[in-house]
Amino acid sequence: MRTYLDCIPCFLKQALEAARLAHADQAIQKEVLERLFQEIRQFPLELSPPRMGKTIYAIVKNLTKKEDPFAQIKQKSNRLALSLYPRLKEKTEKSCDRLLTALELAIAGNVIDFGVKNSLEIEQEVKAFLNGDFDIHNEYNKPIFAYAEFRQALDEAKTILYLADNAGETVFDRIFIEQIKEVDGGKEILYAVKESPIINDALAEDAFFCGINNLARVISSGCDAPGTILEFCSKDFLKIYKEADLIISKGQGNFEALSEEKRRPIFFLFRAKCPIVAQDIGCKVGDFILKR
Amino acid sequence: MRTYLDCIPCFLKQALEAARLAHADQAIQKEVLERLFQEIRQFPLELSPPRMGKTIYAIVKNLTKKEDPFAQIKQKSNRLALSLYPRLKEKTEKSCDRLLTALELAIAGNVIDFGVKNSLEIEQEVKAFLNGDFDIHNEYNKPIFAYAEFRQALDEAKTILYLADNAGETVFDRIFIEQIKEVDGGKEILYAVKESPIINDALAEDAFFCGINNLARVISSGCDAPGTILEFCSKDFLKIYKEADLIISKGQGNFEALSEEKRRPIFFLFRAKCPIVAQDIGCKVGDFILKR
Repeated sequence: MRTYLDCIPCFLKQALEAARLAHADQAIQKEVLERLFQEIRQFPLELSPPRMGKTIYAIVKNLTKKEDPFAQIKQKSNRLALSLYPRLKEKTEKSCDRLLTALELAIAGNVIDFGVKNSLEIEQEVKAFLNGDFDIHNEYNKPIFAYAEFRQALDEAKTILYLADNAGETVFDRIFIEQIKEVDGGKEILYAVKESPIINDALAEDAFFCGINNLARVISSGCDAPGTILEFCSKDFLKIYKEADLIISKGQGNFEALSEEKRRPIFFLFRAKCPIVAQDIGCKVGDFILKR
Repeated sequence: MRTYLDCIPCFLKQALEAARLAHADQAIQKEVLERLFQEIRQFPLELSPPRMGKTIYAIVKNLTKKEDPFAQIKQKSNRLALSLYPRLKEKTEKSCDRLLTALELAIAGNVIDFGVKNSLEIEQEVKAFLNGDFDIHNEYNKPIFAYAEFRQALDEAKTILYLADNAGETVFDRIFIEQIKEVDGGKEILYAVKESPIINDALAEDAFFCGINNLARVISSGCDAPGTILEFCSKDFLKIYKEADLIISKGQGNFEALSEEKRRPIFFLFRAKCPIVAQDIGCKVGDFILKR
């Protein structure tokens, strides 16, 4: 997805939030914004928002000397999500279409985003999901929820590349992967996390903490942008990316980075978190998306 | 009120909205943002947000050659508010404290802000107010709703300067001024509007259209910022400002511009529309404010 002018105020907001999380004082916060102004002026809008996301967090890191301002938040997300695991698993086990429920859960888990929400709000959202309060577009054939198509692609796939999004969300991914394995235990699944800290995106340590490594091979994409931007990925990753039979891409950042990829069989699973992305897809903010 | 770093993303958002209302194409919208970057870099944060507001709309005017992009919106607001007048008046007449109800209405009218809301939302908000759905802080002595203090100042005042905010909101002001006149018909009231178009702020034509001129003398502040910034006001206005016994200041923009004024007896009536102002005052977003 290209960057819209409306993304620019949001870039500044994200930069301020990250700078504050890194305990930057007023002067440093202002310096972060000024450097960002310079970057934005030179930024071609044809590039995707995570490209600028990478720059934003590089500026914050450079000026605050904090390697991972979101470290605590990620730990908190992991612990919160693990504490929810038994209830999520129970919900899945009781469902008449366990794979679909686990897939919906994997999308619901995309709310774990401490950038915008606190733990109470996350618990409430998950509870609302468990109660069936969401109007999920699981009518199998809607363009923004292409479940039938996904199901077929999954059945045919031997090797699946799963692109992770946030820490904590990994627990929801685990339940989904457990169900994929239940359908066919012989499938090879590779779970790709980011190479180094970027916002609250999952790293290898988060995948391990949440137990993904017992189900899938945890790999790094080599990328440190808040989305899998292919030109920043490692050669090893790109080989896997090109050879996988199916790519499951989690989160808005990965969608923004890869939405124009026509050559690979990618399904994007995420909740539309901002009006610009919602407009780009043709859905409402908050919608559950399963889009090829 | 000083400008916070958090105001900066919001400045860019406002600039984009105004540029689009003025039918600016993508290239002009980008140019508006670039010029704004330059202005923001030089902007001392000690100044109030409406100072930058003035600059934003000057840039948009300069690049789009549109004198008044909000003209239609203002007309729409005036007509919508006038259509609500009978119901608002009835609500006031039925109240056991008509002045208080009219004052609350004047604050409720501050929702008429097409920058952020559409007409359906405005009607819903007004309806919610008429139904008594709002938790207004009218317990007379709360610091953010100083009604007892206001009542006393009003009783003692002979000349009242009323600083208008948005078009449409003027109808709500009219009901409040009608009640002030009912308390004491002998008070002289001056209703100050902006000198030239700035966002959806009321101009003389809006005050006349809404019938304020039958109750108060409509004057111009001489200022074209989205808030009454004294150094941009006319000499005539400043004389009135210095001599008035009581100043009633409507809206967040006027609060931001005048909140540090210690020399004059000003009561600020508005709804807190953004988290930064709410934090500055110590209230929640949406709260009804009557603050000296």
